Amino acid sequence: MLIDNHVPEGVFNLIIGSSKEFGDEMLSDKRIPLISLTGSTKVGKHASALVGERLGRTIMELGGNNAVIVSQHADLEMAIPSIVFGAVGTAGQRCTSTRRVIIHESIYEKVKISLIDAYQQLESKIGNPLDANTLIGPLIDSGSVNTFENALKKVQFEGGKIIYGGSILSGEKYLSGNYVVPAIVEAENYFEIVQEETFAPIVYLVKYRTFEEAIALNNEVPQGLSSSVFTLNMREAEKFLSERGSDCGLANVNSGTSGAEIGGAFGGEKETGGGRESGSDSWKAYMRRQTNTINYGEELPLAQGIEFAF
Amino acid sequence: MLIDNHVPEGVFNLIIGSSKEFGDEMLSDKRIPLISLTGSTKVGKHASALVGERLGRTIMELGGNNAVIVSQHADLEMAIPSIVFGAVGTAGQRCTSTRRVIIHESIYEKVKISLIDAYQQLESKIGNPLDANTLIGPLIDSGSVNTFENALKKVQFEGGKIIYGGSILSGEKYLSGNYVVPAIVEAENYFEIVQEETFAPIVYLVKYRTFEEAIALNNEVPQGLSSSVFTLNMREAEKFLSERGSDCGLANVNSGTSGAEIGGAFGGEKETGGGRESGSDSWKAYMRRQTNTINYGEELPLAQGIEFAF
Amino acid sequence: MLIDNHVPEGVFNLIIGSSKEFGDEMLSDKRIPLISLTGSTKVGKHASALVGERLGRTIMELGGNNAVIVSQHADLEMAIPSIVFGAVGTAGQRCTSTRRVIIHESIYEKVKISLIDAYQQLESKIGNPLDANTLIGPLIDSGSVNTFENALKKVQFEGGKIIYGGSILSGEKYLSGNYVVPAIVEAENYFEIVQEETFAPIVYLVKYRTFEEAIALNNEVPQGLSSSVFTLNMREAEKFLSERGSDCGLANVNSGTSGAEIGGAFGGEKETGGGRESGSDSWKAYMRRQTNTINYGEELPLAQGIEFAF
Amino acid sequence: MLIDNHVPEGVFNLIIGSSKEFGDEMLSDKRIPLISLTGSTKVGKHASALVGERLGRTIMELGGNNAVIVSQHADLEMAIPSIVFGAVGTAGQRCTSTRRVIIHESIYEKVKISLIDAYQQLESKIGNPLDANTLIGPLIDSGSVNTFENALKKVQFEGGKIIYGGSILSGEKYLSGNYVVPAIVEAENYFEIVQEETFAPIVYLVKYRTFEEAIALNNEVPQGLSSSVFTLNMREAEKFLSERGSDCGLANVNSGTSGAEIGGAFGGEKETGGGRESGSDSWKAYMRRQTNTINYGEELPLAQGIEFAF
Repeated sequence: MLIDNHVPEGVFNLIIGSSKEFGDEMLSDKRIPLISLTGSTKVGKHASALVGERLGRTIMELGGNNAVIVSQHADLEMAIPSIVFGAVGTAGQRCTSTRRVIIHESIYEKVKISLIDAYQQLESKIGNPLDANTLIGPLIDSGSVNTFENALKKVQFEGGKIIYGGSILSGEKYLSGNYVVPAIVEAENYFEIVQEETFAPIVYLVKYRTFEEAIALNNEVPQGLSSSVFTLNMREAEKFLSERGSDCGLANVNSGTSGAEIGGAFGGEKETGGGRESGSDSWKAYMRRQTNTINYGEELPLAQGIEFAF
Repeated sequence: MLIDNHVPEGVFNLIIGSSKEFGDEMLSDKRIPLISLTGSTKVGKHASALVGERLGRTIMELGGNNAVIVSQHADLEMAIPSIVFGAVGTAGQRCTSTRRVIIHESIYEKVKISLIDAYQQLESKIGNPLDANTLIGPLIDSGSVNTFENALKKVQFEGGKIIYGGSILSGEKYLSGNYVVPAIVEAENYFEIVQEETFAPIVYLVKYRTFEEAIALNNEVPQGLSSSVFTLNMREAEKFLSERGSDCGLANVNSGTSGAEIGGAFGGEKETGGGRESGSDSWKAYMRRQTNTINYGEELPLAQGIEFAF
Repeated sequence: MLIDNHVPEGVFNLIIGSSKEFGDEMLSDKRIPLISLTGSTKVGKHASALVGERLGRTIMELGGNNAVIVSQHADLEMAIPSIVFGAVGTAGQRCTSTRRVIIHESIYEKVKISLIDAYQQLESKIGNPLDANTLIGPLIDSGSVNTFENALKKVQFEGGKIIYGGSILSGEKYLSGNYVVPAIVEAENYFEIVQEETFAPIVYLVKYRTFEEAIALNNEVPQGLSSSVFTLNMREAEKFLSERGSDCGLANVNSGTSGAEIGGAFGGEKETGGGRESGSDSWKAYMRRQTNTINYGEELPLAQGIEFAF
Repeated sequence: MLIDNHVPEGVFNLIIGSSKEFGDEMLSDKRIPLISLTGSTKVGKHASALVGERLGRTIMELGGNNAVIVSQHADLEMAIPSIVFGAVGTAGQRCTSTRRVIIHESIYEKVKISLIDAYQQLESKIGNPLDANTLIGPLIDSGSVNTFENALKKVQFEGGKIIYGGSILSGEKYLSGNYVVPAIVEAENYFEIVQEETFAPIVYLVKYRTFEEAIALNNEVPQGLSSSVFTLNMREAEKFLSERGSDCGLANVNSGTSGAEIGGAFGGEKETGGGRESGSDSWKAYMRRQTNTINYGEELPLAQGIEFAF
């Protein structure tokens, strides 16, 4: 069916390709004023340098390493399901997936047990994503499964402790070999592997004592996409959103890291690349900006009041 | 005298240096989130690539190649002094200096003669910039004098014709050897040297027939800083400011290219680098942006209305 | 058919009534925070006083007395059809109908003849508004016909001259007696009847010499709804839109008085009542405004830095 | 000393007068487009009707009846001094003075005792306002003292109970007879006298059970100027600021009713009159608004896409 939408042919184009050469050609082409890229930090750095070299513009949405802070003032009825959804939804393969949970020491054990309990209930819901009862589908390919396994090895080597999940599922239901049991790991925030984004359902639990410490832990990763705090204390909530709070592009109170409000600018700071897709003034990235001066008088004032009579 | 302005020591720092190594170190340093650079397009490209590689932010204000369109509907009483001030003020050493004049064929000769006449009157006003009667001072150094001479050689080689000025001044008043007589040159817009920014008082005259052609000539250079049209015809004025008009960051009607209104965003498109200093929302380049969601209800809506009950 | 739009029953109500008592009851009812009224200036003043007395809010869109200025720099190919459409479209019964044409003396005769010529061509297009060929329908009722006739009598009494139209149509096609031939009248702006809004197809022609005089004539009526200038001269166009130009809520260049751009705030100044429907920030009139201060710190600064320690 | 500030003589005028006739003349004068009035609701209603009748504009800042809600989640270290300052500062003669305190029943007695204790400490600080140690000065005149006494009589008659203060001070230090001991009164929100603004240092204590009830009590007065809640619970804080919260023009969390942030729009809803002085877009009330359409094309599109060819 032909639909005449008055858009000339060729305005929108889809090119599917995976070779680096092809991408580099686009990135270096002066005829493409703006490159909007969603991908890894590694690819983003490469692209940003190439486009920068020709003074082009970019919108970068790169890696996230998103944390949820669970305060002693949290409503756990809200916090637990939010963390679980953020960590295992889409099998942990969202840029905004919850990767770290920073828990006040006074409720650490309680939160840990609640999470394990929730994960146990979810184990029967791993399966074919086309099945309406499934809540957790497969990883995207066997490469992702390797990444998942390697991350778990590495975190144990650095001193972390897997307290739930981490295995690869087999059997008739899981023939592709890409189904895994989401993992919960006790770790330290400074671990190398915790500092990285592993695009898989692994969540790291970290303990804190003061709220300032919790904010510092939230911020002490190179990425700056999404972040979240669960608390009913207004001082904590506002501090988290203040200039001394989360340094991420998204900061939520009593709402998880995953997903975003339609209408809010979406994107992140630091190694997430600084781009914003949708929301507020993100449209400006697609525009040419121009400052106009119209002199409709009969005099000719020179800039900065300069006198120049000859 | 000590003034306590409550700003901690070290917030502002001035470092004077000229080695590339030193600059590269700053450009590559992750602790400097934003680099604001005013300089040449060449340096800008280098810097933009280096900062891009570490996903930093830049405000680039690079070269200009600014044109004035003189329509047959122009008020020449305003246009001529504007062009002269734009071309020879600060001895042609402003980023917004007028470098090209695009003139309707029906008034080309008249404009040319008026400009030569004005330049003749100015010749006695070249001299010591500390003298209140001086309107045109020296070039910044002998390197600039070479650049000036080479550009004039090149434009003649490409087919252009110097119709006024171009010599280096000597004598007691001009001992430094850096004083030149500003040049007027008839040229074609596509000449290589016309496509470049020569930071010296050379202005190129170009002829046009239709207003669309004038806009095309204005835009057919790699730089996109300042631009100007002199016309009393509102259709021409508005077209120049429209999405089919000038592609520069600054576009003025009946006001020259040089200088800028305080309060308007200052900067340019294309190889001028896209940065904006001052004006409108340029402050945002210095800010961290954050989208906040506060859930103060007792329900927990998931992003995009997802159902995830376990 | 029942459509569940989730809007509770009774949110929107339509009440058709014409008694003053009924209206006054609504106007005085404290439970109705905002009254939005489109009507005559007389009704508007009454309503504004009643609502004011109870400190309610209003959006008033009252009478217009809209002029078109035709400069000697006008494109008459655009001006003439605009005036004709504005004056006789909807049989002159729009709040934005063109009621006055302010013409530069050098083209006055030419514009006059062109208008008469156009009105002559339109005479065959007066008729049943349901007929696709009709361009001019009837007046709303016989009261309006009386108003039309009285205005024409009055303007003649004051010294004006009907140069076209003004009769009531009869015959099989016009049985209702509400069809009239639109009138063109030469008049002076200060005439009492010219100062009033007659909601019928009468247009007054007025002559001017300087552009400042044209603006003054445009403004010298109590109403301030719509206004328009036809000129290709950018100085005139911009002056008309400046703080020394039209004092109306709508001011158009090379576009008639009638109708309004979707998205632009619609309404007028002076006796038009100041209300704005749609466009820009008119939504704020429907809102409660609140300034919030959230103190999430542990100190308690008093307003204006007052010290109050006990 | 003459200072030439380039403002023509007569732009600003100060007229001191108290007769109603004089005021009415200004209110009715068409040459004064905007009347900005700070005064009582009674005067405001009268003025609003008069200005409305001539379709003028007003900025009304009328009476307030400002409440502080003290939640069981309040930091009383902040709440008590805020209430005391709001109730007795400037001897209760600010439009934003605290007039009502709505206290959760579980902490009612504690708050009551703390307030009485604070008032006792302040009694020695009543005196000459030019004395730096004074915290509470006199009422403005003997009329105000009468109003103070009458309000206290009335509230007792309606069933209220004075639990502190209320007497007129005498003696050498208080010769004018205008010094009073600020009063604390237990009352019901629906009392007639509690519904009124008494411009004197009387504060009414009211008890609540649920937070929804507290908001309802806050809103159940005709005035809508300032309001405040003390709570550390983010759900209460946000609810108070939401569309279901305070209906006042000013709503503060953990900050008293008195005074206002510079930069925030200042004014109130309901019988406070709706005007805003300073802050956000209050400047618009002083402006003429105009919607401009510039047609610089050579075609003449009619409004709403109407076809009108003749």
